[in-house]
Amino acid sequence: MSAAKAQTPPDELARVFDHIAANEESFVKRVMDYVRHPSISAQDVGIREVAALLVETLQGLGFSAEAVPTSGHPMVLGHWNKAPGAPTVLLYGHYDVQPPDPLDAWISPPFEPTIRDGRIYARGIGDNKGQHFAQLLAIESHLKVHGTLPCNIVFLLEGEEEIGSPRIAEFVAANRDRLKADFVVTADGPLHASGLPTISYGVRGVASFELRVRHASRDLHSGNFGGVAPNPIWTLVHLLGTMKNADGEITIEGLADTVIPATANELAAAARLPLDLAEAKADIALERLDAPAERSYYERLMFHPTLTINGLHGGYGGPGSKTVLPHEAFAKCDIRLVEAQTPDDVLAKVAAHVARHAPEVEFISRGGMLPSKTPLESPYGEVLRQAIRLAQGVDPLEYPTMGGSLPDYVFTKTLGIPAFVVPYANADEANHAPNENLKLDCFINGIRTGAALLDQLGRRKAAG
Amino acid sequence: MSAAKAQTPPDELARVFDHIAANEESFVKRVMDYVRHPSISAQDVGIREVAALLVETLQGLGFSAEAVPTSGHPMVLGHWNKAPGAPTVLLYGHYDVQPPDPLDAWISPPFEPTIRDGRIYARGIGDNKGQHFAQLLAIESHLKVHGTLPCNIVFLLEGEEEIGSPRIAEFVAANRDRLKADFVVTADGPLHASGLPTISYGVRGVASFELRVRHASRDLHSGNFGGVAPNPIWTLVHLLGTMKNADGEITIEGLADTVIPATANELAAAARLPLDLAEAKADIALERLDAPAERSYYERLMFHPTLTINGLHGGYGGPGSKTVLPHEAFAKCDIRLVEAQTPDDVLAKVAAHVARHAPEVEFISRGGMLPSKTPLESPYGEVLRQAIRLAQGVDPLEYPTMGGSLPDYVFTKTLGIPAFVVPYANADEANHAPNENLKLDCFINGIRTGAALLDQLGRRKAAG
Repeated sequence: MSAAKAQTPPDELARVFDHIAANEESFVKRVMDYVRHPSISAQDVGIREVAALLVETLQGLGFSAEAVPTSGHPMVLGHWNKAPGAPTVLLYGHYDVQPPDPLDAWISPPFEPTIRDGRIYARGIGDNKGQHFAQLLAIESHLKVHGTLPCNIVFLLEGEEEIGSPRIAEFVAANRDRLKADFVVTADGPLHASGLPTISYGVRGVASFELRVRHASRDLHSGNFGGVAPNPIWTLVHLLGTMKNADGEITIEGLADTVIPATANELAAAARLPLDLAEAKADIALERLDAPAERSYYERLMFHPTLTINGLHGGYGGPGSKTVLPHEAFAKCDIRLVEAQTPDDVLAKVAAHVARHAPEVEFISRGGMLPSKTPLESPYGEVLRQAIRLAQGVDPLEYPTMGGSLPDYVFTKTLGIPAFVVPYANADEANHAPNENLKLDCFINGIRTGAALLDQLGRRKAAG
Repeated sequence: MSAAKAQTPPDELARVFDHIAANEESFVKRVMDYVRHPSISAQDVGIREVAALLVETLQGLGFSAEAVPTSGHPMVLGHWNKAPGAPTVLLYGHYDVQPPDPLDAWISPPFEPTIRDGRIYARGIGDNKGQHFAQLLAIESHLKVHGTLPCNIVFLLEGEEEIGSPRIAEFVAANRDRLKADFVVTADGPLHASGLPTISYGVRGVASFELRVRHASRDLHSGNFGGVAPNPIWTLVHLLGTMKNADGEITIEGLADTVIPATANELAAAARLPLDLAEAKADIALERLDAPAERSYYERLMFHPTLTINGLHGGYGGPGSKTVLPHEAFAKCDIRLVEAQTPDDVLAKVAAHVARHAPEVEFISRGGMLPSKTPLESPYGEVLRQAIRLAQGVDPLEYPTMGGSLPDYVFTKTLGIPAFVVPYANADEANHAPNENLKLDCFINGIRTGAALLDQLGRRKAAG
C-alpha cells in the first residue's frame, strides 16, 4: 500500500477546498436532486429531460453547451475556452443509467434518493451521474472562488453508455474539431477495494465470435450411428484444441504477431500493485490460476490476449444419461486484445484458422472493440497523481491496463490523445444492481479531486 | 440382396403351413384380442392381468407355466419338456408395452386394434406382443397338426423390458436351472428396410459416464478474470482431446486391450450386407462418415468401440454474445463396447485416465451393459437360416453384431448359450410411437417361421 503523502495545497486550491467543505450539505442535496430524474437509456425514459438539464447546468456555469442530436440519444457537449495557453481536458461521462429492476430488491426506491449509513442510495448515483456531477461541482466551486477557470474544458456526456455506446465511435470520428483536447479523464467505475484511488491508463480490447457445426439432420442413436456419423461436439473439441493448448498458449496462427510486449515501466507498475493472491483466489474459490503458471496475476490481466470460451453447448444436458449422438453444437468465444491487436485482424486470423483446420465449422464474427493504452510516461499522469495526492492525501494505484474493455480507443486512437480513468465511487457501489450507492466521503473526495485537477492543470502550459 | 431359394418343406412342416393358412383369419382376430389388453410397465397398468393370460395360454397348450414373482413385474415362464433327446430353445420376449402417449396422434385408439391397409394398428402389436404371440400360434399349430412338439421349449416373457429390464440379469443368474436351454431366440425389432428377414448374432455393450468440473464459485467477467481464472470448458476440451484424437482413435490408455478383433467370417458377413452408402448418408444429410476414414460402414458399427459425447454444456448459450468466463461445465459420454470389453474394466480405465490427465475433473460412472456375441459358426445359425428359407422363401441377412445395446449377455455370458435375434415386424412398425403397427403378412410369416424352427430343431440332436 502507498503511504499517505502529506501535501500542502497551494493557497488558490486551499480556498476552493474550503468552499467545498462549507457547501457539503447543499452539494449532497443537489446531487440527490439530479439523480431523482430517471434517465434509462434502454427504456428511453427521461433521457431528453436530463440532457436538457445538463445543458442548462453547463450554460449556468458559463459554458457554451448543447445536446447534440445523434441517430440515438443526444450527446451533451459543453466547452470552456477562456484560458488561452492553458491545457484542455476532455471530461467524459454518461448521463444514462441502467434499468432499476428488480424493483423489489431496493430498500428505498431507485429514483427517491435516500441517505443511510453515510451513503446515498439511488440508481445512477455511482454509475455515473454522481461522479460527473462531482466534476460539475468542482468546476462550480472553482468559479465561485476565483471567478474563472485555470484551464480549458470539453465536457462530453453520453446518453447510451449503458446500452453499449453504439454511436460513440462514429460521433467522435465526426466531431474531432469540437473534441480537441490535450487529454481525457473519465471519472467512472469504483476505487480499489481498499478505498485507495486509482488511475488506469488503458483497457484491453475484445473480439467475439461464434463457431457452429451441424453434421446430421437430426439427433441420432449412439448405438445405431456411433462410429458412422461424425459428432459435432468432437469436431468443436478438436478444433478448439488447435486454438489453445493445455499449457495456455493461444495457437491460432499469427494471432500474436501484432502484440507489443509490456514495457519495463508497465511491468514495474503492475508489480507495485497490491495483491493478496491467496485472498484473491479464496474470494472466488479458485484452487489455482489459469495456465501458463509463470505469469503474475496482473501480467495475466494486462499484457496478454486471452481466448475465453464463453459457452459451449450441444446434445443432452438433463439428468442421468442419454445415449444420443447429437447433430449440432456451438461455441461462443471472446478474445481480449492487447496493443496493437485489432478486432478486424484477429477475427480474420481466427476465420482463416477455422477454415484451415475445420472447414465444416461455420465461423460467425460478433465484432469487437480496439484496445487502448496511454503511456505511463504521459505528463498528464503526473498531473493526475499530484491532484489526487492534494485532494485525498494518498498516492493512487496505477493500472497500466484494465482487464476489461471500454471504447477508450475513440480518445487514444481516433483523437490521438492520452486517456485516463480516475474513478470516484466506492468499490461496493453496486452499479447495475439494486441499492446502487455512493459513499458521501467518496462524493466529496471526487469534488476535491476534480478541483485539484483544474488547479494543477492551470499551472501547466498546454501540450499542443 | 439375397436371391430367393426355392425350398420344399418337409411334409410334416407343409401340413403345419397348411393349418396356418387355413386359420389366418382367426389368428389375426386372436392377436387383436391379445393386444386389446393394456400392459404398460411404466404405469403398472394391466401387467398382472396379461401375465395371467399368458400363463393360462401356455398351460392351455400343455406347458407347465407360471408368473414368477420378482421385486418388480413378474416373469412369465413356461416349459415344454416332452421331447427327450431333442434340443431346447429358449424363446425370449416381453409382454409389457410402452405408454401410448401422445394419444391425440393415434388414428385409431391404441388399445382398440384396427386393421387398415393390410396392417394391424395397436400399441404392442409390433413391440413385442404380436411377435411372441406369433410364436405361441406356431406352437399351437404344430400341436394341432402333430399332437406334440418336436423339441423342448423354455418360454420367457419379461414384464419390464420397456423400462430397461432392471431385473433380467439378476433373474437369469438366479434361475439358471429353470432356463437351461441349447440356445435363445428373440423375436423382436424390425426386419431390414427392404423387407428381408435378418438374424443378429450380437450386440455392442455400453458404458456411460459423466465428467464434471467447477473452477470458481461463480461465473466471472471474461475481462476482469480472463487469463487469471481457469475455464472449465477449456479444461474439458483439453481432457477430451486426450481421450480421442482428430483421427478418430480412442487414446484412453488400455481401453482397447481386451478387444477381440473381428474374425474373417464376421468381416465377410458384414461385407455381404446390402448398403447404399450414398442413400444412408443422404437419409440423415451426412457429408462424410466419421473418422477414421478407412473403415467400412458396418465395421464401424459392429467391430469397434466408440466414444460418443452425448452432451457438453457450460456457460452462455443464448443469443448474441456474452463476455462471461463460466465457472462450471460437464460432459456426458458413452462408450459402445465390443467383445470382450466390460463396462467395469472400461469405466475403471476412463477413471484412471481422467485422474492422470485432469485430476480436477470429477468422473461419475453411469454404469453399463456387457456386449454379447454368438459365433457365426454356431450350428443353430444354420437351423435358423433354414427355417427362414422354408417359411419365407429367402435367405436372411446376417448381422454379426448390432450397433446398439441389449442385455443379451444374460444368455451368452450368464447362461453361456448362443443367442439370436430374429425379428418378425415390418421396418416401419412405429414401435414406441403412435400408430404402432404390424403388417398382416409379417405376422403370418412370423407364425410360419416359428413353426419351421420347431420342425428343423426336431431334426437335430440336442447339443448338450
